[in-house]
Amino acid sequence: MKSYTDYLWFNTERRREYICITDLLQNALEKSGIQEGMLLVSAMHITAGVYVNDDEPGIIRDLDNLLDGLAPLGRDYYHHRTGEDNGDAHLKSLLLHHQVMIPVTGGKLDLGPWQQVFYAEFDGCRKKRVVIKIIGD
Amino acid sequence: MKSYTDYLWFNTERRREYICITDLLQNALEKSGIQEGMLLVSAMHITAGVYVNDDEPGIIRDLDNLLDGLAPLGRDYYHHRTGEDNGDAHLKSLLLHHQVMIPVTGGKLDLGPWQQVFYAEFDGCRKKRVVIKIIGD
Amino acid sequence: MKSYTDYLWFNTERRREYICITDLLQNALEKSGIQEGMLLVSAMHITAGVYVNDDEPGIIRDLDNLLDGLAPLGRDYYHHRTGEDNGDAHLKSLLLHHQVMIPVTGGKLDLGPWQQVFYAEFDGCRKKRVVIKIIGD
Repeated sequence: MKSYTDYLWFNTERRREYICITDLLQNALEKSGIQEGMLLVSAMHITAGVYVNDDEPGIIRDLDNLLDGLAPLGRDYYHHRTGEDNGDAHLKSLLLHHQVMIPVTGGKLDLGPWQQVFYAEFDGCRKKRVVIKIIGD
Repeated sequence: MKSYTDYLWFNTERRREYICITDLLQNALEKSGIQEGMLLVSAMHITAGVYVNDDEPGIIRDLDNLLDGLAPLGRDYYHHRTGEDNGDAHLKSLLLHHQVMIPVTGGKLDLGPWQQVFYAEFDGCRKKRVVIKIIGD
Repeated sequence: MKSYTDYLWFNTERRREYICITDLLQNALEKSGIQEGMLLVSAMHITAGVYVNDDEPGIIRDLDNLLDGLAPLGRDYYHHRTGEDNGDAHLKSLLLHHQVMIPVTGGKLDLGPWQQVFYAEFDGCRKKRVVIKIIGD
């Protein structure tokens, strides 16, 4: 069994941002030399998410509306008693989930034709990290 | 390390449908010959989900009500400016998540007594695919 | 490839409880002897969740409020026609997700500085189980 570990860094200009990372994952997979196995991509911060969906600006806006409707920025969360102001970002991360597994088949990410992988930043404007772990042969 | 890849196809009669696939996964596991490892089952479309819960019609109806309450069919989503009408299905997929990992122990899916795996179709009446990837020994 | 399987048991005093299990996972990892790979931690019941976030009482209360707002305890769910009273717990489990994958790097859980793993009980006061599966080298 081979394994490969890599990290991606993000520092977004806006507080919330959705960044397509499929090509970065394919690059990591090529470096690993793994042909058959699984790739895990997982946010290392608790105010970010990773998800698979369409690279279409409308649906990204719909997703952002959905998440901000359920866990609005600016609400008076209990978490803010610590002095933080990002309670919404924690809850958005939990609702969307912070990680995705991708099957690796024949040296490629085995994704459907419309599936793209996104990093979802909910509390940006600072350096944040994502781990990529690939295991297989 | 062994690996095994398979695909399931679905073409539902209704727009939204919830299909128990536990037996299909157990069949794939038996074909793989893998005794210890992990099984990934992941929708390859961005308007479908995969989840684990109870095979009980009431809870399926409750889940459908919950998801359609949060991301109703027929709302005027930004995604629809592309000509699509399935914005709700994208958001339902994101809320429910599109994949599940199942531990494989002693050649069996290591699930609890009430755990069943479901394919959740949110925009059906056409051919759609799920990938199964198993790695282990 | 090595694999390691373990189970954690919980029997909470309250119906809903959030328990940090990061140390228990690190212990299991040490027992496994695995240095590079992946660890899956997954609830074996359909009324519990596993998630990664902050070990801070305020955000746990915010999460509980969010989930109970979306799937309130005491609502008249279709699932209750079976005689059960825990429809809310099924839906909370589905919204939060019941499992997490953790990369294993250099014999450690490769988590970010604030990431803690939690078991989320939504229908407690009875014995319930979580499976840990680790594969790697």
